[in-house]
Amino acid sequence: AKRLYSASASAGLRINADRLQETIHHTCQWGAAHRYGSGPTETGMSRLSLSDDDAQVRRWFAEETKKLGCSLVVDELGNMFASRRGSLPKPTPMIAMGSHLDTQPRGGRYDGILGVVAAVEVLRTLAENGYSTHHDVGIVNWTNEEGARFPKSMMASGVWAGKIPLKQAYSLPDIFDPSATVKSELQRLGYIGDIACSSTGYALGAHFELHIEQGPILEESGKKIGVVQGGQAYRWFTVTVSGRDAHTGTTPFKSRSDPLLAASKMIVSSNAIAKKLGALASTGVFKIPPSSSTNTIASNVTFTLDIRHPDDAVVDEVQRLCTESFQAIAEEDGRGVKVDMSLDTDSPATKFDPDCIKMVEKAATKLVGADGWLHITSGAGHDSVNTSSRCPTTMIFVPCKDGVSHHPEEYCSPEDCALGAQTLLESVINYDKF
Amino acid sequence: AKRLYSASASAGLRINADRLQETIHHTCQWGAAHRYGSGPTETGMSRLSLSDDDAQVRRWFAEETKKLGCSLVVDELGNMFASRRGSLPKPTPMIAMGSHLDTQPRGGRYDGILGVVAAVEVLRTLAENGYSTHHDVGIVNWTNEEGARFPKSMMASGVWAGKIPLKQAYSLPDIFDPSATVKSELQRLGYIGDIACSSTGYALGAHFELHIEQGPILEESGKKIGVVQGGQAYRWFTVTVSGRDAHTGTTPFKSRSDPLLAASKMIVSSNAIAKKLGALASTGVFKIPPSSSTNTIASNVTFTLDIRHPDDAVVDEVQRLCTESFQAIAEEDGRGVKVDMSLDTDSPATKFDPDCIKMVEKAATKLVGADGWLHITSGAGHDSVNTSSRCPTTMIFVPCKDGVSHHPEEYCSPEDCALGAQTLLESVINYDKF
Ligand SMILES: NC(=O)NCCC(=O)O
Ligand SMILES: NC(=O)NCCC(=O)O
Repeated sequence: AKRLYSASASAGLRINADRLQETIHHTCQWGAAHRYGSGPTETGMSRLSLSDDDAQVRRWFAEETKKLGCSLVVDELGNMFASRRGSLPKPTPMIAMGSHLDTQPRGGRYDGILGVVAAVEVLRTLAENGYSTHHDVGIVNWTNEEGARFPKSMMASGVWAGKIPLKQAYSLPDIFDPSATVKSELQRLGYIGDIACSSTGYALGAHFELHIEQGPILEESGKKIGVVQGGQAYRWFTVTVSGRDAHTGTTPFKSRSDPLLAASKMIVSSNAIAKKLGALASTGVFKIPPSSSTNTIASNVTFTLDIRHPDDAVVDEVQRLCTESFQAIAEEDGRGVKVDMSLDTDSPATKFDPDCIKMVEKAATKLVGADGWLHITSGAGHDSVNTSSRCPTTMIFVPCKDGVSHHPEEYCSPEDCALGAQTLLESVINYDKF
Repeated sequence: AKRLYSASASAGLRINADRLQETIHHTCQWGAAHRYGSGPTETGMSRLSLSDDDAQVRRWFAEETKKLGCSLVVDELGNMFASRRGSLPKPTPMIAMGSHLDTQPRGGRYDGILGVVAAVEVLRTLAENGYSTHHDVGIVNWTNEEGARFPKSMMASGVWAGKIPLKQAYSLPDIFDPSATVKSELQRLGYIGDIACSSTGYALGAHFELHIEQGPILEESGKKIGVVQGGQAYRWFTVTVSGRDAHTGTTPFKSRSDPLLAASKMIVSSNAIAKKLGALASTGVFKIPPSSSTNTIASNVTFTLDIRHPDDAVVDEVQRLCTESFQAIAEEDGRGVKVDMSLDTDSPATKFDPDCIKMVEKAATKLVGADGWLHITSGAGHDSVNTSSRCPTTMIFVPCKDGVSHHPEEYCSPEDCALGAQTLLESVINYDKF
């Protein structure tokens, strides 16, 4: 009987797809922005961390989880832990479903939001069915995942995991109004709790995160669920190339020191190197002085380089080959340029917990069949990358339209949202039984 | 006797090097900006066309030329023609020494200014020596050569030469305050004259322009004077590359439509094409949307392409090969990008007048010997490129430090300024005798 029960652990439990949709869009009243269509939900989001809109959605989160009988703890960095008691006599570190409610300034309605709202839907489903887990089960709303307002992504989960000093997080300034910091905004909103922000201050038994893929792999392969194996390593650089301004009409190539040409060659070269090694290398930012003009060679250029691969050693190798190649390019044309490459972010590869992964595989196979899901490595960083160093962790990905995220038109269909939430529910119940 | 006199036409005439320096820097009190050293003349200039500073230096120009007995005519576009009568019984279209007194917003003390102030020094030398030319000899101060405030370079000489419609010039807006136009600013300063701005409204017998080289060729070859054969052809394009924003961590290369990578390849390719054909191709401006970030592929990129060669056919060929190459690059990576190339400026090659050139060669040989000067083609556009379609024209180049211009630290040594002015004097006298 035990095995049978375990095999169809959540037999009677079905999340409510309509309620989930309704709730997602209900919470998006706080921070809705960037309308792109006439429908009531056809806007993006701008809900920056610790803004007034963030405070409103936090209030909603607190009220809803209390209605479900959860106890709510806020730590010293504003992380919100809502916990529902299990049937074991003593409270245990909860099996958490975590993600974030803050968004990019030009973000969408699913990145982070889906993970938290689906977790609320899971608790609602448990509650309305009177289903009792063995262990405590609950939700984490992590502060400042996006790092868009206070420039450090996955900030509060990073502090919780001991990777970022609390002081450093507290003193991060608003990038537009440096008079506001994480600490001053937490104080303003009354969100500095008594509990230490750490894995001992508030311990977690496990961490499951449902998230949109933010890439095109599921959609292109026709799969419905991504069972996430870990996060790839990534390293961010700022590359500065310095030359000398010169007139484009009067300065022969051999007399030039042209940083824009050199930077272009470096970008092309980094792409070729990454391709050859099966890695990614990308440039998102490219800056020249504002006084630039058609007939003036710019004096300097700055661009970013983002190198990624599931294997740290490959990232090392791409970096080494890029450094070598950039040096050679710097000497190639005219009088040469100077190049400087500085490391901004270093996020090593993460492997998620095999047991957690198995629980998701089992849930996914039951829901969409063995052919309906995919093993996938997260291309992007997530709070789960931080929690995985302190507790068993994995993630569940659902497709998003055209792989687009960090964009007002980011979209995950109601069916895929519901399937993700159901997978989350069943994975947590599997893990609770396990 | 005639031949002897002609061979040493200006025997007794020496320009005053100190007075020339003093006058250059005296006039730079109006618009001095961008201090780079502690010396009294160690600033650049910001004397935008038809600004209050420009009005002040125009007043100075009017007063000084009147003191020298010149008659002053202002045409409907504010061009100032100061003319000194020759000894022939009837006035003739004057042999003009022309350049401009406006500067770039971050310009220097020599570009344009040297040509006008040296011309004043030439007239002063003629006057103090009681030297009478046969033909009328004078100076033109052309309005808005730089095109920095009202975005059309060599504007008023272009209208004078019939290349730009007067109406179009009048309606050019200040790039920072579109409520001010060329016409409204001319009116405000009282600089709309009665004379038509055209080569019949105010005819010129010839046009000699002394100018800093704005490039490194003279300096690098150790020559003192450039005898300018003409202006190279140039064509300016805006290239727009459109793709789709995507997450750098989650989007495989094959699913990307990356305009920044494609634009980089295009810039590298245009450089290679120009090199192969002995032409120039340069990118000075590179723009991506302001919301760019390290982990987002930009949705679109705009860059400028400036193609130059002394031969129009080579510019054609570089353009053709770039267009072809850009199309191929657009399809090369991932899902491809869209590319659009629009023509902004088309300035055909110009050949200066063989007689004018001979007069300058003769003067230069006398002053620095046959080895001291160089035939040179102007890499940049100048008012002389416009005048040469309507009257015999050439230019005299002097070296500038490191080839730098359009920069506060633009510098031409007092010796080189003086040598340029002496060459201008002797060239004009040679032409007058010719
Ligand atoms: N999910 C996400 O966009 N994280 C930000 C860090 C990264 O670029 O991977
Ligand atoms: N002299 C000068 O900079 N002219 C502007 C047009 C050009 O770039 O050639």
